Amino acid sequence: MSSVTSSPTFVRSDLVILGGGGVAVVLAGIAHYADWTAVVAFVVSAVAVTLLATLVGRSVEQLGDRFGPGATGVLQSALGNLPELFICIFALRAGLVDVVKAALVGSVLANLLFVLGLAFVVGGLKHGTQRLDSERARTIAVLMLLSVSAMAIPSLAHGLHTPAVAHEKAFSIIVAVVLLVLFALSLPASLKRGATAADPHAEAPRWNVGLAIGLLAIASALAAFVSDWFVDALEPAMDALDVSQVFAGLVVVAIAGNAIENIVGVQLAAKGQSEYAFAVILNSPIQIALVLAPALVLISVAFGLSTLTLVFSPLLVACLLLSVVLATVITIDGESNWLEGASLMALYFIVATAFWWG
Amino acid sequence: MSSVTSSPTFVRSDLVILGGGGVAVVLAGIAHYADWTAVVAFVVSAVAVTLLATLVGRSVEQLGDRFGPGATGVLQSALGNLPELFICIFALRAGLVDVVKAALVGSVLANLLFVLGLAFVVGGLKHGTQRLDSERARTIAVLMLLSVSAMAIPSLAHGLHTPAVAHEKAFSIIVAVVLLVLFALSLPASLKRGATAADPHAEAPRWNVGLAIGLLAIASALAAFVSDWFVDALEPAMDALDVSQVFAGLVVVAIAGNAIENIVGVQLAAKGQSEYAFAVILNSPIQIALVLAPALVLISVAFGLSTLTLVFSPLLVACLLLSVVLATVITIDGESNWLEGASLMALYFIVATAFWWG
Amino acid sequence: MSSVTSSPTFVRSDLVILGGGGVAVVLAGIAHYADWTAVVAFVVSAVAVTLLATLVGRSVEQLGDRFGPGATGVLQSALGNLPELFICIFALRAGLVDVVKAALVGSVLANLLFVLGLAFVVGGLKHGTQRLDSERARTIAVLMLLSVSAMAIPSLAHGLHTPAVAHEKAFSIIVAVVLLVLFALSLPASLKRGATAADPHAEAPRWNVGLAIGLLAIASALAAFVSDWFVDALEPAMDALDVSQVFAGLVVVAIAGNAIENIVGVQLAAKGQSEYAFAVILNSPIQIALVLAPALVLISVAFGLSTLTLVFSPLLVACLLLSVVLATVITIDGESNWLEGASLMALYFIVATAFWWG
Repeated sequence: MSSVTSSPTFVRSDLVILGGGGVAVVLAGIAHYADWTAVVAFVVSAVAVTLLATLVGRSVEQLGDRFGPGATGVLQSALGNLPELFICIFALRAGLVDVVKAALVGSVLANLLFVLGLAFVVGGLKHGTQRLDSERARTIAVLMLLSVSAMAIPSLAHGLHTPAVAHEKAFSIIVAVVLLVLFALSLPASLKRGATAADPHAEAPRWNVGLAIGLLAIASALAAFVSDWFVDALEPAMDALDVSQVFAGLVVVAIAGNAIENIVGVQLAAKGQSEYAFAVILNSPIQIALVLAPALVLISVAFGLSTLTLVFSPLLVACLLLSVVLATVITIDGESNWLEGASLMALYFIVATAFWWG
Repeated sequence: MSSVTSSPTFVRSDLVILGGGGVAVVLAGIAHYADWTAVVAFVVSAVAVTLLATLVGRSVEQLGDRFGPGATGVLQSALGNLPELFICIFALRAGLVDVVKAALVGSVLANLLFVLGLAFVVGGLKHGTQRLDSERARTIAVLMLLSVSAMAIPSLAHGLHTPAVAHEKAFSIIVAVVLLVLFALSLPASLKRGATAADPHAEAPRWNVGLAIGLLAIASALAAFVSDWFVDALEPAMDALDVSQVFAGLVVVAIAGNAIENIVGVQLAAKGQSEYAFAVILNSPIQIALVLAPALVLISVAFGLSTLTLVFSPLLVACLLLSVVLATVITIDGESNWLEGASLMALYFIVATAFWWG
Repeated sequence: MSSVTSSPTFVRSDLVILGGGGVAVVLAGIAHYADWTAVVAFVVSAVAVTLLATLVGRSVEQLGDRFGPGATGVLQSALGNLPELFICIFALRAGLVDVVKAALVGSVLANLLFVLGLAFVVGGLKHGTQRLDSERARTIAVLMLLSVSAMAIPSLAHGLHTPAVAHEKAFSIIVAVVLLVLFALSLPASLKRGATAADPHAEAPRWNVGLAIGLLAIASALAAFVSDWFVDALEPAMDALDVSQVFAGLVVVAIAGNAIENIVGVQLAAKGQSEYAFAVILNSPIQIALVLAPALVLISVAFGLSTLTLVFSPLLVACLLLSVVLATVITIDGESNWLEGASLMALYFIVATAFWWG
């Protein structure tokens, strides 16, 4: 992977991702098999996962609109969640159910509070009050509110309705199927929407199809291995650092697993493309609620892993619902400034602190 | 009731309602007095109640604007709830307090999730993205949010504030009076609003005043009898079908009791009159919160029925508050599409499933 | 204080405040030291606190834009909370932690439900449907939603997440610091906003700087004494009236402590300046969440008073979150009428009733 020529096929950032990714994967492998201390192994594999995820995203981008821009967008969303999916599957195999639950909710919170807040701060400081009044942003926000709310119902039922407690698994499976059906229903609209909405940072692809598909396949395969090592190092590393499992999932896994979307969203905000930044950032919770979480529920049952249900701990659910309502209201409000961003980041910090203890 | 001539006074749909209603009432009576199996008796009386409710609505419509369009609108709202009121009163007399509570909340949920969702799906598939940005829709949504929130406070107090538990009945009576006062205050505005907003599906009345009032009186009186039979068959039928009382109230009674408003709302959406559909659908929860629920509380106390309080079970309240916030945000967002509708229907299905178990 | 001449320096309302304030302070002092019955002492000191708070506000107003209109606005907000700050400090010294917690939440509820409702009723009856669609009103509403939500997290963590219970004090201190940092960050924007937004009821100052600063100093010093007497009479007066501590804090202290802002907000609405009224009314909860509550937490710890944490009772938190969501939705809706106002007031009445029992 480091034998790249200096042909114009690769720009500088490609080389950083390929070179850095290669080094990180090799180091993560050594750390895993040579029994380096858990914290080092964890950090190295986290960096490797992030760089592989970036490479997956870049490869899909380079496939360009060869499948049409709509299909590319859908493919990008689907493959963008691949590393997080791998990590969660290995974590479920290792019995770390609470970590996975916290990571799923944590991804939503990190997106809606931390990343959205950071995008508002960066965009607001550079470009002043930013307007978000497109039909597209509002539609995404409402879909996000509805899908995350649906995902929260099993937890509400578990906590507030005694007879439902005995049916936690069955109920989660039913809800997972409903959410996946909703996702399937939304695909035609996504495909069509992609076709009309021009991607504001599109450029001509530099890689030919073979190279793009090849790198995509290699990065995906490596991501599976590295995710395994990441999960392996997670528990001992958190023990060494005296961090609770829930906090590890909520903050560490959630941020490592969504690094690229997060960076892209903030970069777009910095460029003043607040509408597009917003769409990228709000799309992630939709993906988690309609695809990642329900898929993991069904996979955990089908493959006999530790059973994942959609019953999250009460404080996770309360923060989840509060966050989606806040994010939706802010979108529908139609404007954002850096102070709103700072408030969102403060909220994220406060929520994360609450989970610092156990 | 089946001796109608083929005079132009009655159009085909009138004949269906009159004829079908007559047959259904007779069958329901036979089922009741001849001790048919509970499930059959229940279904027949449910159909009879629905057709009688439709006849009540049609009669009021035929009274036309003889009392002014505002008064007619108010009359229509008031009489539209008559069958549901009868059913709840008989259910309270039979001690089915949990059924009544679930039916009240279920009517709101059915309207805001199922019917609104169906209207979005039907309207969206036929007419694409629909706009809802009239002042009227927003005002109704905000009033709906406020009135349902007020109705939810006794439940919050009961669940979260120990000293309030001992005063459940007194508190519910006070809140009921406050809600009825709010309703009384809102009447002048309703009367006036009716006077300026032209009903988009108005037509010249075909029935003369005597016929309209006569049918109205007969249908209302029969509705009282049939409601009694309906409640009588409810418990054994649900036992035979192994359905819990809460589910029966939440889904079966709620949908049977609101059948006409529901059908009208969806029909209006199909015709592309999304604003008006929205107003009809959102108006129903306002009626339940400001009139039906408080009236039933006071009636249950005044007439020595099983005491109805406004303390609903925790999951009912959580779903109620979530639904009103979602519906309000969707209205204020100003647009709807069929995917939002499908999400709302999915939410309704998930909530109903949660109550399937006990 | 009653030796004022009839020079044009003082208009009639000045004389009422100065004269009435002087009399009330003297009476409150006599009531305190001569051991009048608690209820009389309480009422007299409440009136004195309110008039002194009014005098503080008037003095700052008379300083005019000598420090620039932005700085004056900030100064006004800061000093406007002075009497409430004094009352809460003395109450904490007296161990009345529950009264202070209820007063903090009660101030928010009183502003968002009672005062906002009253402003809508008064403005709506006088001027019809009022529009609230300025960027400023929306920004203030969103900041209010975010800051109050942040203040609510410790309560959610305490009630829903067992491990956080042991760290109530530490968590509250951390959150208090975060909230104060947010306030500090918001100051430049407030200073700048003040500079561009002309105060619609500005008039040329009548008092010279010396008189304004002198009266400000005297009123502030007296407010400290009278607050002490007020707290002293609070407990026996509530006992005599058989009112619970929580109700006393939630309703009595909250309304007495915010009397001026409340009156100003409603007066502005009566004049048809609904935007400005809205800004004044929504600004108060921001002040409480970002300054008053966190400052009291830190003061209580630093000066060894009864420790104030941000863990409010569950019903207080539920009503708080419900109210901020309702108020924000109403603002973003962009319109208000008197019926919405009446509904808000009904909600306040219902919430207050819930706390009447214990």
